[in-house]
Amino acid sequence: MNPTDTNTLIQETIASIRPIDGAAMKKASERMDGLLKPPGSLGRLEEIGIRLAGIQGNHQPKAKEKLSLVFAASHGVAEEGVSMTPSSVDGIMVRAIAAGKAGINVLARRAGAEVRVIDVGVSEPYEEPENVVVQRVRRGTANFLKETAMTEHEAAQALVVGITTAKNAIQETGAKIVGIGEMGIGNTTAAAALTSVFTDSDPALVTGAGTGLPEDALRRKIRVVRDSLALHQPNPENPLGVLSAVGGLEIAAMAGAMLAAASEGALVVVDGFISGSAALCAAAFAPMIRERMVLSHLSVEPGHKAMAAALELRPLVNLGFRLGEGTGSAAVMPLIEDAAALLTEMGTLEEELVAFAPPEHPSKQETQTK
Amino acid sequence: MNPTDTNTLIQETIASIRPIDGAAMKKASERMDGLLKPPGSLGRLEEIGIRLAGIQGNHQPKAKEKLSLVFAASHGVAEEGVSMTPSSVDGIMVRAIAAGKAGINVLARRAGAEVRVIDVGVSEPYEEPENVVVQRVRRGTANFLKETAMTEHEAAQALVVGITTAKNAIQETGAKIVGIGEMGIGNTTAAAALTSVFTDSDPALVTGAGTGLPEDALRRKIRVVRDSLALHQPNPENPLGVLSAVGGLEIAAMAGAMLAAASEGALVVVDGFISGSAALCAAAFAPMIRERMVLSHLSVEPGHKAMAAALELRPLVNLGFRLGEGTGSAAVMPLIEDAAALLTEMGTLEEELVAFAPPEHPSKQETQTK
Repeated sequence: MNPTDTNTLIQETIASIRPIDGAAMKKASERMDGLLKPPGSLGRLEEIGIRLAGIQGNHQPKAKEKLSLVFAASHGVAEEGVSMTPSSVDGIMVRAIAAGKAGINVLARRAGAEVRVIDVGVSEPYEEPENVVVQRVRRGTANFLKETAMTEHEAAQALVVGITTAKNAIQETGAKIVGIGEMGIGNTTAAAALTSVFTDSDPALVTGAGTGLPEDALRRKIRVVRDSLALHQPNPENPLGVLSAVGGLEIAAMAGAMLAAASEGALVVVDGFISGSAALCAAAFAPMIRERMVLSHLSVEPGHKAMAAALELRPLVNLGFRLGEGTGSAAVMPLIEDAAALLTEMGTLEEELVAFAPPEHPSKQETQTK
Repeated sequence: MNPTDTNTLIQETIASIRPIDGAAMKKASERMDGLLKPPGSLGRLEEIGIRLAGIQGNHQPKAKEKLSLVFAASHGVAEEGVSMTPSSVDGIMVRAIAAGKAGINVLARRAGAEVRVIDVGVSEPYEEPENVVVQRVRRGTANFLKETAMTEHEAAQALVVGITTAKNAIQETGAKIVGIGEMGIGNTTAAAALTSVFTDSDPALVTGAGTGLPEDALRRKIRVVRDSLALHQPNPENPLGVLSAVGGLEIAAMAGAMLAAASEGALVVVDGFISGSAALCAAAFAPMIRERMVLSHLSVEPGHKAMAAALELRPLVNLGFRLGEGTGSAAVMPLIEDAAALLTEMGTLEEELVAFAPPEHPSKQETQTK
């Protein structure tokens, strides 16, 4: 795709994200309050059920068809010793996910979500299983401590990979719930840099130990983020420029997939810290996307709170996850499906009072349970 | 059952709760660390998977068969205006649960848990559906602001109802995961009194708004708890005496069901505040039971934190639930099943490295993902 077509597709996708349906939300909210329980007593599930209604324009939303998209790419900045793990593991994990053996496979299978893994730019060659979607924009980013991670055109191409693969997968599966995860050694460093830019936070406050860095390596990682931002001076109002400077190929693709899922009317289930950094990018492109997102869990990464605050979203659970791959988003999918089921399967006060307590049924307020 | 037989069954059940299997936990923990992920990166699911292994004496534990037990009874103290809802709703909700229309039915069905509802003492007559287990010890407790809620023998009988119904249900279904919920207008008042006694907390700190009391009614509720405790002076070292003084029939039955589930080798999934007060009773009878429990969610009730601290357990999620019925325990069952699935379905580093990266595979430490 040439630069003009790439930018046109991105702009069209952004433009097709509509406000969610207030009338459907109102109807869902009224139904939620009329169910056989005190209003509000199922807390966050009620909130999510109502939001799903708004997203689908249907007060009895569907949540059966689900997808877990996993975008993989390598990071040039990994050579700075910001991870305990070599980039060669990127290909190993892509193969493990394709073989159905990784954490995301177990949790997605349990949630009833189909997993698709997309290689947007793994650096080291590996034997590619048939079921990996290979759309490498380039073999890994450059080391952004020294130069931009990629060109703006490459960042746009990675976005387009995300847009097209998500759109195809959603159209093929009819998914209403889409989890967005990743694999990429070194990508908590890129995510920390993006979070620092988009939340206007000091790198020391949003850079964490990833999957287990010792103290001295964490200090080095913070310095890498700080020096990279000083070098590139990315402008948060130009998200493509930010991705180009300190992003990742898989992170750009994830942002694209989020935009596409929103434009297709699916709920975007953000995974952890890296997926959250893609959510910040997506929201920089299209602020309205936030009401189509759920933050699945609070990551152990210290930057996750600033991220959630900037997105004005509260993580649904806090399970101490720090794995990535989309595991957090898969783990909460049953709760999201529960939220939809309340609206479609629970009895209402009115029905049950007629069925069980004629002729003198108490007024609605009196019949709150307990 | 005469008093001697009742007490014998309770004592035998308590005595049959064994310490969990340390060797199986060690084996599960080693397997968890060898899976295709950095050690510890799936946080609380790893902890629960390992605990399940200890409970089942099997490093690859099972979690498919699940039960939701719902115990219902009425509370004499409801006449003090401690709830917005009349006790007549107890029977209505028992019927709704039996008909599969309540919140617990939707969430348990989604989790794959069979629901059984047991009437231990609903006060107002209602048309009893066939699938309600009716084992009323008495028709509701007395108002414990004025007299003991029930005799110690009645409390023991209610415990036995819980023990026998749970034991039968577990043996019939083979359930490894048992959620314990309830229905009883006024039972947050009893739960607050029990929590105050067992956690040695001031009633004002552990008494909350239930399903939605206004401020003045909350002040009255706190006074009811305080005056009742002053009247009965219950001794936390005599849990049967505490239940008799300020407990509830369904709460005693829930404590019995927890003891039985633990003795049958099932994981006890505690629901919210009322279920938690039963857990405090069960732990007063058998302190070892705590390692066989999961606190499903942090209730909105202010006393829930003191309760969790006393049980030395951390709630798994915080979804703003305040419904009861066992809804919180049903909502987290998929996460518990996930925890077991990690141990049985995920690939190990060793297997995947041999499969994917011969001949020069990196050392175990180097292959942590990300």
